[in-house]
Amino acid sequence: MAYINQNYLKLKAGYLFPEIGRRVKAFQEANPTAKIIRMGIGDVTEPLPPAVIEAMHKAVDEMAKRETFRGYGPEQGYDFLREAIAKNDYVSRGCNISAEEIFVSDGSKCDCGNILDVLGDGNTIAVTDPVYPVYVDTNVMAGHTGAAEEGGEYSGLVYLRSTAANNFSADIPSQHVDLIYLCSPNNPTGTVISRQRLTEWVDYAKKNNAIILFDAAYESYISQSDVPHSIYEIPGAKDVAIEFRSFSKTAGFTGVRAAYTVVPKTLMGKTAQGETVDVYRLWMRRHTTKFNGVNYIVQRGCEAVYSDAGKKQVRALVDFYMANAKIIREKLAAKGMQVFGGVNAPYVWIKTPGNATSWEFFDTLLNKANVVCTPGSGFGKSGEGYIRLSAFNSRENVEEAMKRILAVL
Amino acid sequence: MAYINQNYLKLKAGYLFPEIGRRVKAFQEANPTAKIIRMGIGDVTEPLPPAVIEAMHKAVDEMAKRETFRGYGPEQGYDFLREAIAKNDYVSRGCNISAEEIFVSDGSKCDCGNILDVLGDGNTIAVTDPVYPVYVDTNVMAGHTGAAEEGGEYSGLVYLRSTAANNFSADIPSQHVDLIYLCSPNNPTGTVISRQRLTEWVDYAKKNNAIILFDAAYESYISQSDVPHSIYEIPGAKDVAIEFRSFSKTAGFTGVRAAYTVVPKTLMGKTAQGETVDVYRLWMRRHTTKFNGVNYIVQRGCEAVYSDAGKKQVRALVDFYMANAKIIREKLAAKGMQVFGGVNAPYVWIKTPGNATSWEFFDTLLNKANVVCTPGSGFGKSGEGYIRLSAFNSRENVEEAMKRILAVL
Repeated sequence: MAYINQNYLKLKAGYLFPEIGRRVKAFQEANPTAKIIRMGIGDVTEPLPPAVIEAMHKAVDEMAKRETFRGYGPEQGYDFLREAIAKNDYVSRGCNISAEEIFVSDGSKCDCGNILDVLGDGNTIAVTDPVYPVYVDTNVMAGHTGAAEEGGEYSGLVYLRSTAANNFSADIPSQHVDLIYLCSPNNPTGTVISRQRLTEWVDYAKKNNAIILFDAAYESYISQSDVPHSIYEIPGAKDVAIEFRSFSKTAGFTGVRAAYTVVPKTLMGKTAQGETVDVYRLWMRRHTTKFNGVNYIVQRGCEAVYSDAGKKQVRALVDFYMANAKIIREKLAAKGMQVFGGVNAPYVWIKTPGNATSWEFFDTLLNKANVVCTPGSGFGKSGEGYIRLSAFNSRENVEEAMKRILAVL
Repeated sequence: MAYINQNYLKLKAGYLFPEIGRRVKAFQEANPTAKIIRMGIGDVTEPLPPAVIEAMHKAVDEMAKRETFRGYGPEQGYDFLREAIAKNDYVSRGCNISAEEIFVSDGSKCDCGNILDVLGDGNTIAVTDPVYPVYVDTNVMAGHTGAAEEGGEYSGLVYLRSTAANNFSADIPSQHVDLIYLCSPNNPTGTVISRQRLTEWVDYAKKNNAIILFDAAYESYISQSDVPHSIYEIPGAKDVAIEFRSFSKTAGFTGVRAAYTVVPKTLMGKTAQGETVDVYRLWMRRHTTKFNGVNYIVQRGCEAVYSDAGKKQVRALVDFYMANAKIIREKLAAKGMQVFGGVNAPYVWIKTPGNATSWEFFDTLLNKANVVCTPGSGFGKSGEGYIRLSAFNSRENVEEAMKRILAVL
């Protein structure tokens, strides 16, 4: 019988969302008339911007005619899109990133996992706690960890605690690590890494010859002027960082699927023999061998995000969700709750009242307010005692949910 | 410095298509008025079927309204599509494959590589020669081979020769292997595996507890009635085979990106300790962790492929390309060339005249007929002395190319 990759057997069951689903279903069955409001999952709810719709219709029509039909495109993405990204997302912010360093893909979740294909064994890997589970699970799958320990953490990984004490921005480790996952604006806490702290991270990476995997999928939600949108705003970051960006939360593309990853040509890794190798070349090979490019129609939709009309419409979309976040923050804070995030991110991270566990407060909100949240403990040890509320919803639902939650507190 | 995956350094440069491009470019520059006809790459040229265009426009409109907008879908694909696939591609042919065993993805090339994520080290892996290079390269990347040997083959892989002597259908190996890549209809040779031979393969796999990775991306080009369209037409194959299918060559989706992989629930692998594990569970975990589903608009386009109108239009598209293949076959055979394939596949595999090497004949066709082919040696040792012509082209181009080639022979 063929051998399987038994690292997969180390994975804990995908507990969090199935368990939420189970409890919600049980409640709904017991209370068939209850109108449940779901503020758990981080999925957008509003339609695509009109500029994107128009561009996609046009591209569909191109595919209907022989003269304008497009077959295989470049695996890295069409130049029209890579150039729009470089210009609008990087050069405009003073980041010296070229179109060639941008790899268009079908999702940041995918890329966060796929990047491990070109990185070797033997690296010491740091993740924050709480953490977006994909960073951890893909390392488990790749055999970069030991077994799951009691409490659910994996041996072999370095967990950097993000707590109220450090304002949910993990401290620079005192030990050496080779790979560091950073996510800012953060999922799940909704907090950001300040320019100063990010500079410390880049300095640490330079000193330790480490690579930072910087997930900026929620970049467009940043509202405070000094918060960096890209790690490449920090001098020297091009030598130490890979950045992941997505159209999912910017333009509402969760069902459309488009993202991109920046791999600077100056980023180096090494072989076991100590030879230096540029990561760019390996990623190029991976991307062209194991991927076949993003749908042409979608790439035209992405391009429209950078048109004048598209920019305004995307801004309006982001502003809409952020107004939801503000309502959540302010209503709960006024009632004396400890709230974090929600200023530069569409997530609000909330301390449970009365030292309730995450799941206890989840149950309270479900049973008494008929509102679904995400228990913080699902994102790691340091998430215990918190819940996450997502601002991705209609205004009506957010206002109704807040009314119900306040009545419960 | 972080360790890179140095298996990538074993990869030979992606020689074939860049080298073709270099030679074509040099010729075009030296002969700026020459009208080159490209019959090298296997990319479709005709527009998408009207039923698909209509479905995609409709889906784009759904994405424009809050009530019908779709965010994250199921990673495995929407039920409407998985059920259409199960019914039309399997149950209708007597294959007992359920919708749950179908995983919709953005490409067979991707899946052929990704499947290795869930398979372990220590398997003996067999590929045919000539071979679709992705099977080999992804195994090199995963560390399943040794270094490249002189002649370009990798140590550690078992190469099964496909030559005129066995009608380009590799013989069943006498040794034990754990994984076998089979591609039928075949890229590049255009030949198929007969029902009897495929039955022998399934028997071999059962006897050896091996897994067959069956690539049926060109299935819709089969014209002879007894050739199996799916490996699951062979009794017992559900216990030993994973099948890859694509919309790329069926409905012209090379620029749209949609495919699917069938992982039967009864397919088992083992751990190093000898425990039996179902591959389905691992692939499900991979697909939901490292992938985020295919674009909703595209899935509606795929669904339309299975509508009455869509089926007729797809059939017309396939018939059109196959009429091209027939012209290529017949014109060259009438001139005394040895031609293979082109009956159940859009590729014609041609013995070079006068014992020319693949690249010599490539140069002859380029320089004298201004036609681009693919040198067979680019697909492996046993491809030496052959070229591949693709039937993906306009009728006009195919006829003109044949006229020019015949004048050269």
